[in-house]
Amino acid sequence: MKKHRANKAAIIGGGVIGGGWAARFLLNGWDVHVYDPDPDAERKVNEVLANARWALPMLYDRALPKEGRLVFAQTLEDAVLDANWVQESVPEKLELKREIIRLVQAHEAGIVIVSSSTSGFKPTDLQQGASNPEMIIVSHPFNPVYLLPLVEVVAGEATHPTVIEDACETLTAIGMFPLVVRREIDAHIADRFLEAVWREALWLIKDGIATTEEIDNAIRYGFGLRWAQMGLFETYRIAGGEGGMAHFIQQFGPALKWPWTKLMDVPELTDELVQQVGDQSDAQSGHLTIRELERLRDTNLIAMMRALKDRGSAAGKLIADHERAFQEPDASEVPFVTIRRTVPVDWTDYNGHMNESRYGQMFSDAADAVMVAVGADPDYIASGLSYFTVETSVKYVLETHAGEDVRVETRILLGEGKKLKLLHDMRRATDGELLATCDQFLLHVSLETRKTCEPRADVANRLRELTARHADARAEQERTIQ
Amino acid sequence: MKKHRANKAAIIGGGVIGGGWAARFLLNGWDVHVYDPDPDAERKVNEVLANARWALPMLYDRALPKEGRLVFAQTLEDAVLDANWVQESVPEKLELKREIIRLVQAHEAGIVIVSSSTSGFKPTDLQQGASNPEMIIVSHPFNPVYLLPLVEVVAGEATHPTVIEDACETLTAIGMFPLVVRREIDAHIADRFLEAVWREALWLIKDGIATTEEIDNAIRYGFGLRWAQMGLFETYRIAGGEGGMAHFIQQFGPALKWPWTKLMDVPELTDELVQQVGDQSDAQSGHLTIRELERLRDTNLIAMMRALKDRGSAAGKLIADHERAFQEPDASEVPFVTIRRTVPVDWTDYNGHMNESRYGQMFSDAADAVMVAVGADPDYIASGLSYFTVETSVKYVLETHAGEDVRVETRILLGEGKKLKLLHDMRRATDGELLATCDQFLLHVSLETRKTCEPRADVANRLRELTARHADARAEQERTIQ
Repeated sequence: MKKHRANKAAIIGGGVIGGGWAARFLLNGWDVHVYDPDPDAERKVNEVLANARWALPMLYDRALPKEGRLVFAQTLEDAVLDANWVQESVPEKLELKREIIRLVQAHEAGIVIVSSSTSGFKPTDLQQGASNPEMIIVSHPFNPVYLLPLVEVVAGEATHPTVIEDACETLTAIGMFPLVVRREIDAHIADRFLEAVWREALWLIKDGIATTEEIDNAIRYGFGLRWAQMGLFETYRIAGGEGGMAHFIQQFGPALKWPWTKLMDVPELTDELVQQVGDQSDAQSGHLTIRELERLRDTNLIAMMRALKDRGSAAGKLIADHERAFQEPDASEVPFVTIRRTVPVDWTDYNGHMNESRYGQMFSDAADAVMVAVGADPDYIASGLSYFTVETSVKYVLETHAGEDVRVETRILLGEGKKLKLLHDMRRATDGELLATCDQFLLHVSLETRKTCEPRADVANRLRELTARHADARAEQERTIQ
Repeated sequence: MKKHRANKAAIIGGGVIGGGWAARFLLNGWDVHVYDPDPDAERKVNEVLANARWALPMLYDRALPKEGRLVFAQTLEDAVLDANWVQESVPEKLELKREIIRLVQAHEAGIVIVSSSTSGFKPTDLQQGASNPEMIIVSHPFNPVYLLPLVEVVAGEATHPTVIEDACETLTAIGMFPLVVRREIDAHIADRFLEAVWREALWLIKDGIATTEEIDNAIRYGFGLRWAQMGLFETYRIAGGEGGMAHFIQQFGPALKWPWTKLMDVPELTDELVQQVGDQSDAQSGHLTIRELERLRDTNLIAMMRALKDRGSAAGKLIADHERAFQEPDASEVPFVTIRRTVPVDWTDYNGHMNESRYGQMFSDAADAVMVAVGADPDYIASGLSYFTVETSVKYVLETHAGEDVRVETRILLGEGKKLKLLHDMRRATDGELLATCDQFLLHVSLETRKTCEPRADVANRLRELTARHADARAEQERTIQ
C-alpha cells in the first residue's frame, strides 16, 4: 500500500447516485475525481452537489471538515489514479458494469476497493472475469445519498474478508451506516421490501382501490412514521405487548395466509397502467418541479433527523456519533470559538430568518462548550453537578439565515465559586460581521438538591485559569488598540 | 337525530386499540364510555391513557380542549346509550364482531355510526344480518392510535353515503386523517403493504440473509425516513427526475419480474422460525421493557411530527390544521394569556429541564400572539410588514419539565410608533408559580427593505388601545393593592 497520500475517491458514473457519492466524500474532506463520458454529467453532478452543500451541513451541530477538491476527470485512468476508493454507479447492465470494473482494475494494480452501487446484482456476478475479484464489493446507497445514512455492503464469493472491514470503516467515516448483508441475494435487503410494496401498490391502483396520493397518505400518516425510527420488528414487539414477539407472530401469523395472497402475482405493466400511475402522480405532485420536490424532501429529512438527533435515537444517533469526529472547540484559541456551525433550516421562522429562540440555542450550546473546556462535561453532569443559566440578555444585531456559516466567540467575564458570567459574540463566518451578542449568567448547582453549590476543585481551577487567560487577552487587546 | 346532547363515544373492547380510541376522543373533549367484560380492561385502558395524556398534548403548541369524562360502563347498553359514535375493537373474529354490532344496534335505534377497528374484514361482511347495516363502517386506526393520524375509512355495500361524510368529520375533529378507501378489499390498504413486507422479512430471516435488527436498520436508516414524509410515489417521482413518473416506471418496472419474485410465497410459520424471530428480537430489544419501548417510540414520533409541524409538511401539517380548532389567546382577558400549552419532550436537555432556548421559543410565540391580537397576523406579514425582536432579557426562576402545563401572561409596556415593549410572566398552570420572566423589545419593520418603519394605521390603533387597556389594568391592580 502507498503511504501518506490524501484520501481520494474515484466516482465512475455521474448521475444522481454518482453525484450523491461525490457529495458524501467531498463534504467529508475527500478529494473526488468523477469520470463519466456523458457531456451532461458535470452539470448533473453539480446539481446534486448544490443540494448536498445546502443540506448536509445542516444535519450537524458542528462545522463539517474542509471540503475536498472536485475534479471532472477526462479519462477513467486519471480518475482512478491513486484513488483510495472507486465507486461504480453506471446504469444497471451487468456487462457494462463488468467492463467498467475490468477497466478500473487495469489501471490500479488491484490495491483499491472497487465498489458497485448496483441495486440488483450480486457481487459474485460482478467478480466474473475480473483481474482482482478479491477487491470487488457492492455498496448500495439510498437516494438522497448525501442525507440518508443506509448503505448495504455485500461481499461476493471472491471478496477478501478484510475488504468488507475496510469498506465499513471508510463508509462510517463519511457518515453512512454500512449494513453488511450476511449472504448475497438479488436486490440485497431494502429493495426487496420496496419491490414488495411496489407490486402491491400497482395492484391497488390497477384495481381502483386507491390512487398514488392515497397510497402515499396511507404510508406517511401511519407506518411510515413508525418505520422512520424503529423499523418493522421493534414496532411489532410493542404490538405483541408483554407476550413479546413470539406472541405477536402467533396472533398475526395466520393473516399471512388470508385470501389476499392471490395478489402476490406481478401486475402486467401495460401502457394503460403506466399512464394511469403517471396521471395520478401528476395530479398529486405536478404543481411542484422536481427541484422543489427535492428541496421539500431534503428539508423534511433534515428536520426529522435533527429531531431524532436531539433524542439521541435512530438515525439521529448516527449523526451525533459521526459529528464527534469533527473539530471540537479549542479553549486555547483566543478568542475562544465555542461554536462553528451552519444555521439549519429548522431554525428559521415565518420572517425568513433565524428565530430568536435559536439564538438562545446557539448561546446555550456555547455555554456547554465552555463547561466542557473546564471539565464540566457529560461525565461531570452524570455525577450530579452542572451549571444552570439564571439570566440571559440577547441583542439581535443582524438577521441570520438558513445555510449561513456562523461562529460564536466567547469570553469568560467571571468564573469564581458558583458564579459564571459569559459574553458571547455571534459572527458570520464569511466576513466576521457581528450578528448578535449575549450576556449570560450561570450558577453551579447540585442536580440532586437542585440548589447552588461550589464546583469540584479541578473544575474550579480550570475555570479560574481560563478566566485569567481571557482577562489577559482582553488586557493585551486593549493595549494594542491604545 | 337528538339535539343538544354532549359528544359521547362508546368504546367496545378495551385493549391497546380500544384504549387508543378512548384517549383520542377523551383528550379532544368527548365523554367516553368503555365497555369490556374483561376484568383487566380498566387497567389496560388506563395504561394506554397514561401514555396518551403524556404524549398527545406535546404534539401541539396550544392547550388541548378540557378532557371529557371517562366511564367504565357495566353493560354494553349503558355504554351505547345516547352515544354519537360507537367504536368496536374486539378480537379479529368475524362472528364475535357481528354479534357485538347486533347488540349495539339493539340498544340505539340505528341512529349512530357503528364503526369497526377491524384490520382485515370488509364492512359488507360485518353488515350481514345487522338491523341497521346502513350505519356500519370500518375505521381502521394505527398504533399508537393516540399519536398516528391515519385511519382507513371503508363503506360496505349497505352503508348510507352520508355516513362516510359524517364519519370523516368526526375523525378529523379528533385530529385524525380519514383515508376513504374507494372499494372495500381484505385488509384495506396499509396492512396489505405491511403484510407484503412482513412476508419478505420472514423469508430473509429464514434464509439467514438478515436478522430482525438488520432488517429494522435497513428500514429506519433508509426508506423509512423517506416514507415518513412523502410515501412511495412522490419519492419515486423525484427518482424519475425530469422524465417524471412514467419514465421511472419504464426504467424500474422490469425489475418486478426479476428472479426474486419466487420468494412471494408465504414462508411456513414453523415453531423453529417463530423461535428464531423471537430470539433475534430479544437480542435486539430485550434490554428494554415494553413500557420503555413505547416511551421511546412515542418520544421519537412526537419529535419527528413536531419537526414536520414546524415545516408545515406531511403529518405536521395535519397537526397544525387540527390545532387551529383549539382555544386562541383572547386579548380581552386581563392579564392577557398569550400562551397556554404543555412543555413537549423535545424542549428538554441533558439537565432534565426545559432548555433555555425554549424559554425564548415560548416568549417568541407570546410576542406572535400579541401581534395577531393587534392585527399583525400572517396576512399582514405576507403583505410585507412585521415586527423583529431586537433585544430580550430572560430571568429563569424555577425549572420547567416536559409534560408540565404552562401559561404566559403578557403585558404591553410600550406600543407606540415602531416600538413595542413586552413583559412576559411564564407560570405553571397548576399553581400559578412564576417560572420565568422576559423583557422583550421589538421594532416594526418592512420585510422588503429589512428596515424599521411605522405600522399600518389599523395595527397602530389596535396596539394603542391594547396598551392603554394594559396600563389601566395595572393602575387598577396597584390601587387594589394599596
